[in-house]
Amino acid sequence: MKISILTLFPEMFNIFNHSIIGRAKENNILSIEPINIRDYTENKHKKVDDYPYGGGAGMVMSAQPVVSAIKALKEVNNGKVIFLGPRGVTFNQSLAKKLSKEDNLIFVCGHYEGIDERAYKYFDMEISLGDFVLTGGEMACIPIVDSIARLIPGVLGKEESFQEESFYEGLLEYPQYTRPETFEDEKVPEVLLSGHHENIRKWRRKMSLDITKKRRPDLFKEVTLTKEDIKLLKKE
Amino acid sequence: MKISILTLFPEMFNIFNHSIIGRAKENNILSIEPINIRDYTENKHKKVDDYPYGGGAGMVMSAQPVVSAIKALKEVNNGKVIFLGPRGVTFNQSLAKKLSKEDNLIFVCGHYEGIDERAYKYFDMEISLGDFVLTGGEMACIPIVDSIARLIPGVLGKEESFQEESFYEGLLEYPQYTRPETFEDEKVPEVLLSGHHENIRKWRRKMSLDITKKRRPDLFKEVTLTKEDIKLLKKE
Repeated sequence: MKISILTLFPEMFNIFNHSIIGRAKENNILSIEPINIRDYTENKHKKVDDYPYGGGAGMVMSAQPVVSAIKALKEVNNGKVIFLGPRGVTFNQSLAKKLSKEDNLIFVCGHYEGIDERAYKYFDMEISLGDFVLTGGEMACIPIVDSIARLIPGVLGKEESFQEESFYEGLLEYPQYTRPETFEDEKVPEVLLSGHHENIRKWRRKMSLDITKKRRPDLFKEVTLTKEDIKLLKKE
Repeated sequence: MKISILTLFPEMFNIFNHSIIGRAKENNILSIEPINIRDYTENKHKKVDDYPYGGGAGMVMSAQPVVSAIKALKEVNNGKVIFLGPRGVTFNQSLAKKLSKEDNLIFVCGHYEGIDERAYKYFDMEISLGDFVLTGGEMACIPIVDSIARLIPGVLGKEESFQEESFYEGLLEYPQYTRPETFEDEKVPEVLLSGHHENIRKWRRKMSLDITKKRRPDLFKEVTLTKEDIKLLKKE
């Protein structure tokens, strides 16, 4: 997959040179290319923003450099154009899964008080990271690209597994334990040491159900419970 | 504010050397200090993870290095310990506002298949970025720290203003426009050029109401509408 990112801060995307995504880039499974919007401004002082019409605090990004950058990129990348903004659909795992199947994607990161409304017709989609305000679209783009990229076949090694499985079912994760058996007087639950695979599976399922019910009743409400789930939930 | 971040990838936090947060760090309004969890492992091979008890794919972070790092840090930083994880409360603007009033904060970033459950008693709080899976807690920590940091007095310059005002009221932003007056045959709405402050205020309010109602009925439902809002909503 080729991911192009239009931004005023291309150096922020050096973050993808590390860890799992860094390795995937090195192995050519994925390319992440930041492009500086400022390179496309026709303003002689290289300005990319200006005061808002109608007054008010803050600066607004001009339409011209953003639109010119998208048009230039479209010549070589036919991917969907996704704007990161607070008015978009809220990002979640099913959107991550859907976008991970695209061949190419183009992200546009806004800064300041948003982008001139007339640039919006060039966006295929607007995505919001959540109901909070960030200094710029880059801060939303980074976890969103991470979440999409890890779903691309070959990006995660065997050791990293696929933690999202529980999220696909709408459940939170069960507790995990590793060595030593006793840490600060606290022992690993007996069942996990038993070697009894079926009991371990049931214990983990019950834990996931209990934790989701308690912490995220909104997610729990959406889960389709099996007969076994109902039995496990009743158990002390 | 002093923000300490326990992580296996301290170099990822170089991202905060740029843009608005970078400037606030330079001006000593804020310090962001990543600390390598690996420096605290007692394992002679510097390992920080191990296989999960009970089997299953993936590796689990050991309790010892995380707990030792927290204990060492607590000697110099009395802040709340916040773990970034999928089972936590979902981050939002009111949580950002609350945490921005703390003097110190400690964030703990997990990796692999989560952290040994026995480390959790050292966490004061668990926060989730949203309902999606990331390669590591760092990817959640970065936008969360950004969102908190920008609320600290002095971090945002006058030009960056306080975009969150609309989010505090639970509304999405109205459209913004900047020069030129005509871009690709599309004109700036007449009212914004009128200089009539009261009409501009009403137009922007109506736009915010209409956009929120259409795109985020869940947010709109929570808004306390004024008499004027009801009148504006009815207007064509």
